[in-house]
Amino acid sequence: MLNVELEEAIELMTQSIEETTDFDEIELIDACGRISGEDIYAPMNNPPFDRSPLDGYALIADDTKGASKENIKTLTVVDVIYAGGDSKRTIKKGEAIRIMTGAKMPKGANCVIRQEQTNYGEDKVEIYKELSEYDNYCFAGEDIKEEDLLIKKGELITYVHIGILSSMGITKIKVKSKPRIALLVTGDEVGIPGESLKEGKIYDSNLHLLYSRLNEFGLKPIIYEIIGDSGEKVSKRICEIVDNVDLIITTGGVSVGQKDILHDALPLIGAKRLFWKVNLKPGTPAMYSLYKNKPILSLSGNPFAALTTFELLARPILGKITQNKNLYTKKVIGIMEDEFNKPSVRRRFIRAYFNDGKVRFVENKHSSGMLASMVGCNCLIDVSEGTLKLNKGDKVEVILL
Amino acid sequence: MLNVELEEAIELMTQSIEETTDFDEIELIDACGRISGEDIYAPMNNPPFDRSPLDGYALIADDTKGASKENIKTLTVVDVIYAGGDSKRTIKKGEAIRIMTGAKMPKGANCVIRQEQTNYGEDKVEIYKELSEYDNYCFAGEDIKEEDLLIKKGELITYVHIGILSSMGITKIKVKSKPRIALLVTGDEVGIPGESLKEGKIYDSNLHLLYSRLNEFGLKPIIYEIIGDSGEKVSKRICEIVDNVDLIITTGGVSVGQKDILHDALPLIGAKRLFWKVNLKPGTPAMYSLYKNKPILSLSGNPFAALTTFELLARPILGKITQNKNLYTKKVIGIMEDEFNKPSVRRRFIRAYFNDGKVRFVENKHSSGMLASMVGCNCLIDVSEGTLKLNKGDKVEVILL
Repeated sequence: MLNVELEEAIELMTQSIEETTDFDEIELIDACGRISGEDIYAPMNNPPFDRSPLDGYALIADDTKGASKENIKTLTVVDVIYAGGDSKRTIKKGEAIRIMTGAKMPKGANCVIRQEQTNYGEDKVEIYKELSEYDNYCFAGEDIKEEDLLIKKGELITYVHIGILSSMGITKIKVKSKPRIALLVTGDEVGIPGESLKEGKIYDSNLHLLYSRLNEFGLKPIIYEIIGDSGEKVSKRICEIVDNVDLIITTGGVSVGQKDILHDALPLIGAKRLFWKVNLKPGTPAMYSLYKNKPILSLSGNPFAALTTFELLARPILGKITQNKNLYTKKVIGIMEDEFNKPSVRRRFIRAYFNDGKVRFVENKHSSGMLASMVGCNCLIDVSEGTLKLNKGDKVEVILL
Repeated sequence: MLNVELEEAIELMTQSIEETTDFDEIELIDACGRISGEDIYAPMNNPPFDRSPLDGYALIADDTKGASKENIKTLTVVDVIYAGGDSKRTIKKGEAIRIMTGAKMPKGANCVIRQEQTNYGEDKVEIYKELSEYDNYCFAGEDIKEEDLLIKKGELITYVHIGILSSMGITKIKVKSKPRIALLVTGDEVGIPGESLKEGKIYDSNLHLLYSRLNEFGLKPIIYEIIGDSGEKVSKRICEIVDNVDLIITTGGVSVGQKDILHDALPLIGAKRLFWKVNLKPGTPAMYSLYKNKPILSLSGNPFAALTTFELLARPILGKITQNKNLYTKKVIGIMEDEFNKPSVRRRFIRAYFNDGKVRFVENKHSSGMLASMVGCNCLIDVSEGTLKLNKGDKVEVILL
């Protein structure tokens, strides 16, 4: 299809691919930010035993009947249990066991008196308060019950999950494999940083830009190369790598210039084009193809356009493959704090700064350039086709970066 | 000091330490999320040459005088320049050079006509529009001027910076070294996941929890260990590692129980205690010491308390050492969507979910436990001392996690 709307493009792409069915088993401690590949149910109770929630004395509630500062009850202290310890004793009438926070309740006891409500006695302890059964008493499984669902397949693993799973004695977890991404930057004008720059050429920014953005998402490309403008070279490289990757992102070569070769080269190798040209600026000539069922997203070579369409088009692909909801673009409503006076003949996305519901432009004194002006921006304002201007106070749709 | 307020505690900690003065030189492509260790000024213009912003013909504006569809001017096409190319020709009166987007302007030309305003001629080209000097003409340095400041020392390096620096041919960057963090989990009750659990013990969660949280910040601890409740053991270990780390975080052993040993053990080795006990819940018994000028933050052993005080106390330390503003806790104002009916005798922090200015509690059907109830939460509500209840619609201060 030619000239699709952004929403159509996203639909076409996400319908054309499946979520990954590959999994890795990794150390739990390294699993932060990964997607769980399994439902995990609690293999045990946590705490695994009844325990004391505070420092005090474990005893039988009946023994405190009527106790107060004026009517002191005295019990015999027969043992002491620290957290991690375990008493062999079973409490009998008239007895107490000194117990610390988190320690396992001794047999026979059915409540714990706070040490502040005693005289802190070592052999004998004075009790100043009447207690009921199960006062200050934590039951086994109070935090987590055996068979509780701890994490669902497809859920993003956070540090909290890792703490919880660890508390169950778990050390390994099955996670969805990360997509294997190839990043191919085309363009005869692109020079390699670190090498000397030939007349008429510019140093790469797209490779570094998109590699780093993927890196921010925890998705380092496994292949990233600057290759020339020859359609033959690009398509040959795609044929070589397609079986070993899950997604190919290219930049450059998608316009209609004589050297914009991707829209010819891709069909030649048998890739099926799902769309070319999206009704938005910048980055109109974005293209999406499938080759051997692998998605190929081809973005414009202009860095700001590449960046914008990466956010708008690549993120939904990544979200679909990984099932990581954070990778999908996130839309919010913002209120304009600045004016934007250019009429938008076509739908366009402009860079801005979103904070606390408000949207403003960022002034970059030191640069007028496309990419340099992105510094400090954290969103794109979605300006509809035909908008004459944006006024202060206007509600706008904003894509968070 | 005993019983400090949170704000005092933060002041004491951040005043007691300096930002790191260690630097690493790393590959630019790996620098995302690091803090720049240098001011970097543009070593060159970008683009490095005057160039064409579109596909068309480079020519002399004078040659188009009076041109229109009705009054066609015809020029001789003497060369073609693709992006990345360079023409040896100097344009003379009556001549034009076919030029593609991004290509270097040929000598003699002072504007570019859009190809749509011509007949796309190859040897001769028909011109349908009058142009002025420098129409469709990009000057060298339009994006970035030589000597422009590209990134400041202390600035967080984003993917946009990396794209910009790469476009300058830069391949390496000096960054602030990451702090070397040690994480020591104390407590005789703490069993090691993967090993069998002795009676009365529970599996670790703090080590995994805080390691993973630091991992989320890109700061993997270099030392992370579960050690017993012996004050001697803990202080011996601190003495061994203190010279090789920048920050030690401990959990457990800071209460007033008989085995809560850190507040005794640390002064014994000569550590200077700056505070013990902070006026907040959970995690009151947090402690902060300096030993050989290295900060030691000691948190409560209860996982939810450890997590809360990690956010409130460890993040300001990390922010100060690394100078990464994102590591400081971030406060926002939110509107309560739920009620909270427990009176707060002391200041307390309760877990909740913040979105779009609104704060609500998260129901976790499958768990009532302290840590399990953090799943799905992304903030802590700061409830002041003496608050009787929070009502729907109340404005609250919220710490974003």
